[in-house]
Amino acid sequence: MELVSSTKCFDGLQRQYRHDSDVLNCPMRFAVYLPQEAEEEKGHKYPVLYWLSGLTCTDENFSQKAGAQRVAAELGIALVIPDTSPRGEDVADDPGYDLGQGAGFYLNATQEPWKQHYRMYDYVVRELPQLVEQNFPVSERRAIAGHSMGGHGALVIGLRNPERYTSISAFSPICNPIACPWGEKAFSAYLGADKSSWEDYDAATLVSRASEQLPLLVSQGEEDQFLEEQLKPHALETAAEASGYPLKLEHHAGYDHSYYFIASFIEQHLCFHADYLLKH
Amino acid sequence: MELVSSTKCFDGLQRQYRHDSDVLNCPMRFAVYLPQEAEEEKGHKYPVLYWLSGLTCTDENFSQKAGAQRVAAELGIALVIPDTSPRGEDVADDPGYDLGQGAGFYLNATQEPWKQHYRMYDYVVRELPQLVEQNFPVSERRAIAGHSMGGHGALVIGLRNPERYTSISAFSPICNPIACPWGEKAFSAYLGADKSSWEDYDAATLVSRASEQLPLLVSQGEEDQFLEEQLKPHALETAAEASGYPLKLEHHAGYDHSYYFIASFIEQHLCFHADYLLKH
Repeated sequence: MELVSSTKCFDGLQRQYRHDSDVLNCPMRFAVYLPQEAEEEKGHKYPVLYWLSGLTCTDENFSQKAGAQRVAAELGIALVIPDTSPRGEDVADDPGYDLGQGAGFYLNATQEPWKQHYRMYDYVVRELPQLVEQNFPVSERRAIAGHSMGGHGALVIGLRNPERYTSISAFSPICNPIACPWGEKAFSAYLGADKSSWEDYDAATLVSRASEQLPLLVSQGEEDQFLEEQLKPHALETAAEASGYPLKLEHHAGYDHSYYFIASFIEQHLCFHADYLLKH
Repeated sequence: MELVSSTKCFDGLQRQYRHDSDVLNCPMRFAVYLPQEAEEEKGHKYPVLYWLSGLTCTDENFSQKAGAQRVAAELGIALVIPDTSPRGEDVADDPGYDLGQGAGFYLNATQEPWKQHYRMYDYVVRELPQLVEQNFPVSERRAIAGHSMGGHGALVIGLRNPERYTSISAFSPICNPIACPWGEKAFSAYLGADKSSWEDYDAATLVSRASEQLPLLVSQGEEDQFLEEQLKPHALETAAEASGYPLKLEHHAGYDHSYYFIASFIEQHLCFHADYLLKH
């Protein structure tokens, strides 16, 4: 693991690292934010919020635009922010912004030419937490959150691995990718034509089938340009009502799909997770 | 004036506008943040903090990375964020990042080929406030702040126009541009070889000559890569001591030149300005 950058921020450290991912079969960069006491109080272990970003993002969008470090420092929570896909010249890609590099959709691809590298589900669920927990002063208490494609990733990963997370939240998530253009394009390419394999990566389906329940907060802007065609929070809401899943879905008048929306409500999301992450 | 974008943020509105600048002789974009009540309480007028950005920036860097809207919304202060130079195909430029477009240095150029467009001093002091005060629910109470080249701009403009501003602040400003490589390169090009004309744009010189005093806060990171060669806060401190100017210069251990530093202390700067902006 190689340190790429290190910057002091709200008394803590915002850092980028590069490592060779066995799961993704390529070098990967990720960001970590550690509150101040990591440097000062030996033996202290922080709980971790994993943040999954949306289409076209790297680890930098959330790090630079969300204003999360201020609240994470106050609460004593570490942040880990992976990239959104495998990267590199040897990694398959597509000219579209919504497929290939920058658009990993947090799944394990089964189709050519994607399956050699596109295994973001396994990377986020297993390899990255293992690396983080071996190398940083963090505990095994994890929460997961994300935005848009990353909101989809947070929902899917949290719902499928309730024993690994305390809580799940999402901004503007793709709630029902098996029934929207972004999801249909990506799942066709990565998972193939057999749609039964798609359901393991569909939050609305997973909520309707969940046997274990985690605290779940979703924030959605009402002026989001992708709301009706791509995000479909109503499908998640309907599934949660049918299965009795305790979804807290909040609609915010006037807000769009941008990081200005995330910045406006990240404190609420971090406080939501802190209620569960900091319980012992 | 044309609306380019409008995004809800912390209950207020973050907007970009384009207008034809008479002073700069080209179209210009700037950003405005207005707290919520602008929409709700007719007749209310906000005081304004003008933010001047550094080399290579546009109006977007501060808007997206500083986290200022949260505090501005709480305090009831509007933000106005101009671009850092004139722009466009017809505007003179230079291959360097530190001269030409993105590097206007907040001065009025007197030399060819710059003098047709590079008049950021007049633009920030007169044209932009006039436009803003005619078109938005703001008062004529103004404060000025900035970062790096924009910190230089804030110091120079505030020190030369104490009747127009309540208070001045800067992050990592270029304090003594007549004696550092960035300043020498830019001032030689824009102002010519006669160095006596440079002093009107040199904060250390202006502080030593100031007859009127404004509250002045400067924040400087001790791990700033440009500290010794380019920024020279010691020159400002020495001049302020000699002339009795009430400079509050704070050194922050471990912080660098980035927006992570600004984000960490923008609340302090906004509260500093609020003490003067909100006095009536």
